[in-house]
Order: sequence, then C-alpha cells, then structure tokens
Amino acid sequence: MLGNFTYCNPTRLHFGDDALEHLAEELKLYGENVLLTYGGGSIKKSGLYDDVMQILQDCGKHVTELPGVMPNPTVEKLYEGCKLAREQKIDLILAVGGGSVCDYAKALSVSAYCEEDPWEKYYLRMEDVDNAIIPVGCILTMVGTGSEMNGGAVITNHDTKQKIGHVFGENVFPKFSILNPVYTFTLPKYQMVAGFYDILNHITEQYFSGTDDCTSDYVMEGLMRSLIHSARIAVKNPEDYEARSNIMWIATWALNTMVAKGKTTDWMVHMIGQSVGAYTDATHGMTLSAVSMAYYRHIMPYGLAKFKRFAIQVWDIDPTGKTDEEIASAGLNAMEAWMREIGLVMRIGELGVTEDMLEGIADGSFIMTGGYKVLTHEEIVEILKESM
Amino acid sequence: MLGNFTYCNPTRLHFGDDALEHLAEELKLYGENVLLTYGGGSIKKSGLYDDVMQILQDCGKHVTELPGVMPNPTVEKLYEGCKLAREQKIDLILAVGGGSVCDYAKALSVSAYCEEDPWEKYYLRMEDVDNAIIPVGCILTMVGTGSEMNGGAVITNHDTKQKIGHVFGENVFPKFSILNPVYTFTLPKYQMVAGFYDILNHITEQYFSGTDDCTSDYVMEGLMRSLIHSARIAVKNPEDYEARSNIMWIATWALNTMVAKGKTTDWMVHMIGQSVGAYTDATHGMTLSAVSMAYYRHIMPYGLAKFKRFAIQVWDIDPTGKTDEEIASAGLNAMEAWMREIGLVMRIGELGVTEDMLEGIADGSFIMTGGYKVLTHEEIVEILKESM
Repeated sequence: MLGNFTYCNPTRLHFGDDALEHLAEELKLYGENVLLTYGGGSIKKSGLYDDVMQILQDCGKHVTELPGVMPNPTVEKLYEGCKLAREQKIDLILAVGGGSVCDYAKALSVSAYCEEDPWEKYYLRMEDVDNAIIPVGCILTMVGTGSEMNGGAVITNHDTKQKIGHVFGENVFPKFSILNPVYTFTLPKYQMVAGFYDILNHITEQYFSGTDDCTSDYVMEGLMRSLIHSARIAVKNPEDYEARSNIMWIATWALNTMVAKGKTTDWMVHMIGQSVGAYTDATHGMTLSAVSMAYYRHIMPYGLAKFKRFAIQVWDIDPTGKTDEEIASAGLNAMEAWMREIGLVMRIGELGVTEDMLEGIADGSFIMTGGYKVLTHEEIVEILKESM
Repeated sequence: MLGNFTYCNPTRLHFGDDALEHLAEELKLYGENVLLTYGGGSIKKSGLYDDVMQILQDCGKHVTELPGVMPNPTVEKLYEGCKLAREQKIDLILAVGGGSVCDYAKALSVSAYCEEDPWEKYYLRMEDVDNAIIPVGCILTMVGTGSEMNGGAVITNHDTKQKIGHVFGENVFPKFSILNPVYTFTLPKYQMVAGFYDILNHITEQYFSGTDDCTSDYVMEGLMRSLIHSARIAVKNPEDYEARSNIMWIATWALNTMVAKGKTTDWMVHMIGQSVGAYTDATHGMTLSAVSMAYYRHIMPYGLAKFKRFAIQVWDIDPTGKTDEEIASAGLNAMEAWMREIGLVMRIGELGVTEDMLEGIADGSFIMTGGYKVLTHEEIVEILKESM
C-alpha cells in the first residue's frame, strides 16, 4: 500500500571512473565564486585536491577554501562557513569528501543567508527554508550517507550534546554529484565498513515498518542482498571495482528518498546512534552497528512477520520445520554474523560510552513513532545497557 | 559491475488518490496556452475530463483540445498536432491518458518546431533535438509504459509498416506527472493485463543481459516479485487500491531509466513485438506476451546462469536435485503459467498475424546486440513461427 506523496529528485549524478571529466560542464552553470570545502588532508594525499583545483582554475573560478570539516560537523564550523560564504559572495559550494562534508555543504547552503541563528531555526525548530540558498555540488570520496542525492544535513552541537539531522526539500539537494568508486579505494577499513553498515541501516530503518504489502520492501530486499554480497568482497579486496561500484550505487538509492515514498519508516537506530555520537564523537556507522542488534532483538516480537520475511528473503534462512520466532531469530543471527565478518563495532563500550552516560544518551534520543514499537525512555536505557 | 553513466530524472511525480489536487500548482508554472490531448471518450465517461477542464479554467488557461490519439500514435497524427501547436502558440502540452497519449505528447513536444520532417529526423535518423521543446505534463489513466517519467516516445508509420521508439533526453521528460491509481480501476481487463505484461517485459528486457554482478539485477528481482504478487490480486479485484498502487509505482520505476544505468540491456522482445504491432495494430503489451515465451526459450541456453537465477529468485523454484537447465526451464514454465493465469495473449495468430506476414515482421524487427544472443533474421522468423 502506497500512501500519497510527491517525488522529485533533480540531482544529476555523474558515475564511474571518468566522472570527474563532467565537473567542468557543471561548473559552467554557476558564477565565478566557488567555496571549496573538504575535511582533513586525505584528498591532498590522494591527488584529488590537485585535480579539482586544476579544473576550477581552467574554468576561471575564484576559489575560497574552507578545509577542516570534521566527521560530525559542528555548529561552530557552520557559523564559520556562513561568515565566509557571505563575505566572498559565494555562487557555488563544492564539497569534496564523504557524507559529513556533503551534509555540511547543504547546511551551509541554507544557513549563509539565514537572518537568525540557523541552528535554532533549522535544527531546533525544524522550520522550512525561506531565505536564499547557495547551490551545492559534491565530489564523493566515501559512501554511506546518501547525502549526494538528498536533502539531509546532520549538524552536531557539543555544548548541548545534540546531533540533529534536518531533511531539507529538493531545492537544497545537490545540483550535481560526482561518484567515482575509485576514490573510495583508499579509505581506511574502519571508515569503509562503517559506511557499509550506514547503508544497510538506512535500508532497515525504512524496511522495518508497516504490515502492508509495499513494492518498496521488495526493492529494499534486493538492495540489501546486493550490499551483503558486495561488502563481503570489498572487505577482502577494497579495490574490487565491481563491488565498490555496486556499493556506491546502493548507498545512493538507499537514501535518495525513493524507497521511503508512500510508506512508513522507523529511524530509531539512527536516533539512538546519533545520540551516542553526540556523547562520544564516534564514527556514525559504528554508533549504528553498536546499538542495532539489541534494538532489533527488542522490537522483533512486535514486527514478527516482517522479521520472518527479512530472514527468508534477505538472509536465505530455510523456514522448514521452524517456528516464526525461530526463523526471525535466525535472520537476525545471520545479520549479526555478517556484521562481525566485515568488522563492525558491536558494543558502545568500545566507542567510549560509560555507564554514567546512558541516561543522557537516552534523553538525547528523539523518539520516532513509525516503527513496530514506540520506545519508552526506559526501553532505550535497556537497549543501551544491552549494547554495552 | 556498473559502467560509466550520467543519471538525472527531474520529473516531479504526484502520486495517490489526491494527486489531481497538485495540477493547479503545476499549471501556474507555464503560460496560458494549453494543448489538452487525449484518446477516445473514456476520460469523458469517467468524469476526469470535466475535472481537468474545471482546473484549467480556474487557472485561467486558454485550452486547445486535441482528442483522438490512437493506441499506436501515427505519424499523421503527429503532423496534425505539430500544426495545431504552432498555430496556437502552445505553452504546455497536457496529456491525459495512457502511455500512447504520453508518448504522443513527447513526440509532439520535440516535433512542433522541427524545421524538417520530424519522422525522418527523430525516428528514421534518430538525431538529437536541436529545436525548441514544448513542455509536457501527464495525467495517467493506464499503467505500463513508464512514459510518465522518461523520454521515450514511440510513433507508428502504417505506410512503411514501422513502429519506432526514440528515447529522448531529460529535457523532453514530462515536467510533472499525476499518478492516481483510482484512474486505472475502470480500464477494461484486456488493456489492464496487457499493461501488466508491458511492465514485466520492461524489467526482463533489462534483466536478461550481462554476466556480471550488478545491483540493478537485485532491484529488478524485487520489482518483479512485487509485480507478480500484485497482478494476481488485481486480476481478481481491479479495485484493490493496494495492488493497483504498487503496480503503478513498479511501472514507473521499471522504465524511468534507473535500473538500466551502467548495465547492458536486451530489448529484443520489444523489437519483435513492435514489428508485430506495426502489422496488426494490436495492443502493445499483447504483442510482447505473444512472442515472449518462444524468445526466452530460444535464448535460455545462451544466458543459462541468469535464467537459473531468475527461476530461483523471482519464481521461488526449488533447485534441489535439478540440473541448471531444469531449474531455468522451471522458471520459464512458472512465468508462462502466471501469464496464462492473468489472461495474456500467448499467440501472435490471435492478434491477426498470418503466415505471409512473418518475413515482413522479421524484416521490421530491429536487431539489438545487448542480449545473450544476437539474433539472425532466420532466428526471428523461427521465433515468430513458434509464436503462431
């Protein structure tokens, strides 16, 4: 059953090992003042920085650099970018990096000309954008977040220990994204597999909701099967282009809003994981993996039919001679085994969480209502304890 | 393995039983001269014509009507529309109907200001569009073709017995499409199931190609599973909103260019089926169903691994104790049983094809090279004979 919706996703994707060749044609569509934003020095080491700067110069752009975007971009960094973007009359924000850099670019694009505190307006009050927006383009070096083809932009406030995502409308989506799987080859394994789990969890957040028959669930089963297969190959050989290109494409489609259209969704693992991230600054995908098994085992009885289907369709569990509970449990066991196989962090204790933080993390977890069970504060604390 | 590609699909979809409420906001984006094009009288009987006219009037539009678009729109009808669109200085072509009407609207949008014969330029020579394009919006009353979210536009020339599809670029895609599953309830069963098979065949044309590991194949397996399930429900109860809404969404995603990106494709059933259509004017989906089983059984040995996978993943064939050939054949048998169950035409003889036409139909079938076997003329004749 599909509910009513409007779908539009105008981002132009250039995909493949020649994707950067399309940058010049995209740059021609915008004015001369480009804000180039990126994280640490990895794009300098890989040579991508030099390649991009050369194209920008060849296109006659005036480039302002804004490096140092951190893995969980902070509200202070956002304010710094706003000042710079206004001063330099920026025409295009070009983000080179992973999901954090893309998220940051989008947050900046709506915040630069916001007449009040953008954190309060767009994150605490979640208001619609009513000011000028600076267009964004992305060159992706890490996959997972899907930020290259959606309006999501997560910002962290360390003072208040809040990590909040605003999903902006299609006018904030990147105008273009350059996706070259080769750029993801050099990522350290920890970040690589964290990204893989972020992808799987984006899908499960949208899959584990609803009791109706919905095409998107079938599509998501296909995306998950492909991800599970390709991730196993990529952890053994990170330079397997076939596996990395499939994973890059799955990441985009897992969160480009398509599979969620017309259906209910959960997102509770992200809410708890993001709160863990606000307390520990741990890698996003690992905060999700570390709370997932406790969460899914907790809600399994409330969505048993879907967990049974997940076991059979995604993990090839043979249902013969098993009860529904046994089939569903076998599916989650298979998922856990895959998570351990690819090297995910399975305990929040390993991410720096201590017992005294648990109440605060639970307090910081927004409670979503689309999943199989609306959690109480006590249940979140219980899930966190089981994840220690 | 994903090849290199650029993907952009800017069509805005309004989906659901309230979708028509979005028409006024779309109309505001265009000038006052609207060409309203549709087929026979079915939209008058259903009341949709009156609803649309009321909204057009409320928005202050000057409406020119162009009814009588036939199931396989002809080149003569195209010329008629070109003259009218130029004379009336049309700002927006609004297509109300099924895939043929949407296809016609797109063909017209690129042809109206073509300075030479558009049939020769865009169909016989397949050139790129270099003239002004009139924007198109669609209100869909029948699903199958995917025309509501792509650049495809098939035109038929009865004089030369040619039925040719040109897939235009994203600037020709509908600017918006209104998809209300309820509008599809009143379609006669013959047209409804022909549309269902058109959808399945769009997917199989893209699925049965390549020996690599490609995410799109997993996604297509999901789309096919959902279609097979929902079609069985819809033939028993055409007013089952859940089934009809799922099918409408599958149809769109089957041919909105996503699943073909970065992969090879076949399209040989469409080539043979379209040639059958040029000779008989039969319903598009039925020309596909009537040649499919002979075609797929013919190519099965050349793509055995994929046909085996199709059997297991799409049709739940138990592989235990069977050879690869037996598994693959069991999958095709299951497909044939489903086709008969939903009431498809399985023989081209029933569509008016006679023995003396076979050589001509084979001559009119473009030979595509992306499938598991590049067919010879003799093989096409053989497939047609087996389909009689």
